[in-house]
Amino acid sequence: MQFPEPILRLIQQFERLPGIGPKSAQRLAFYVTTMADEQVQEFAQALLRMKQELTICEQCCAISDRSPCPVCGDPLRDRSVICVVQDTRDMLAIERMQAYDGLYHVLGGAISPMDGIGPDQLHLRELLQRIANEQVTELILATNSTVEGEATAMYIARLAHHFDQLQVTRIAHGIPVGGDLEYADEITLKRAMEFRRPI
Amino acid sequence: MQFPEPILRLIQQFERLPGIGPKSAQRLAFYVTTMADEQVQEFAQALLRMKQELTICEQCCAISDRSPCPVCGDPLRDRSVICVVQDTRDMLAIERMQAYDGLYHVLGGAISPMDGIGPDQLHLRELLQRIANEQVTELILATNSTVEGEATAMYIARLAHHFDQLQVTRIAHGIPVGGDLEYADEITLKRAMEFRRPI
Repeated sequence: MQFPEPILRLIQQFERLPGIGPKSAQRLAFYVTTMADEQVQEFAQALLRMKQELTICEQCCAISDRSPCPVCGDPLRDRSVICVVQDTRDMLAIERMQAYDGLYHVLGGAISPMDGIGPDQLHLRELLQRIANEQVTELILATNSTVEGEATAMYIARLAHHFDQLQVTRIAHGIPVGGDLEYADEITLKRAMEFRRPI
Repeated sequence: MQFPEPILRLIQQFERLPGIGPKSAQRLAFYVTTMADEQVQEFAQALLRMKQELTICEQCCAISDRSPCPVCGDPLRDRSVICVVQDTRDMLAIERMQAYDGLYHVLGGAISPMDGIGPDQLHLRELLQRIANEQVTELILATNSTVEGEATAMYIARLAHHFDQLQVTRIAHGIPVGGDLEYADEITLKRAMEFRRPI
């Protein structure tokens, strides 16, 4: 006896999600069999409605429930600074620190030839248009500190140098606050030494 | 800026699932935003249809797409042996070894006073009826080797002793095949010594 067909179908759906292996997918599917009917319906509704209700902000390209998104639509934001991030989640992480009052631009990924993602697959044209048309004085590159994120930052920095008035910066890399030197990897430590600053 | 409301709703749904924390739920919800519309619909359909298409086998109480389930409905099965398990997944695990040709009985859990699960919440009455009405000669107790599983096995063993013709057995506990003695926990090792057998 194999898994009953309806369970097998749900296991396959869970297996498609990132970080969920065959065993976890089985556990989740069997858990759903024990959930109340209304709960399962709520779950299915949340899945279906999310796709319908979400949109891409026409200015910063973030995933949002409205366009312009709450940040781009906020008149109190400093419109002269744009922080470039790979993902809407990165933008939300910076928002949570409640210390940045500029705008964002969400690329929707990073340049990765291995995965077939080139500059044309990212929201780069929209970024260049914003720099050309708006009074932007600083571009903060906050892509991830991975090979792809660094390559993307370098690529954007080179493009941005065509705009005279524009200052291009990169977020700092070094030892995390509260982190032990002993447990830092070599590259982080190397960066921390390289970018040391006078106090 | 917080998570957009439609994403927040899906994050909450994922967080309800076992073993999925807040960070994983966020990752999964954002992954769904990148899925094609048809894939999301398939996922939602799999959720909704599973609950509709599943039933409980009227004989062994397993979750199945038909009643009697494929095992109970198979005329080649040895109907004199019943293997008692906590969960339909345990039954499927035993089926996968392809070496057992008796029937099963799925309890739907184990006695756990801490979680408010007493004997009445399990499919025990159905089990006793099967023993009383059918020609059962052996009852194999294959509940988990946890405090709750052991308590449930003891409870059933005591009930089953009222039936004279019935032999009650418990699956063996000891060192897993291929396992290192060095890495076995004390209780497993104690059991392995206690239940040693002549060769």
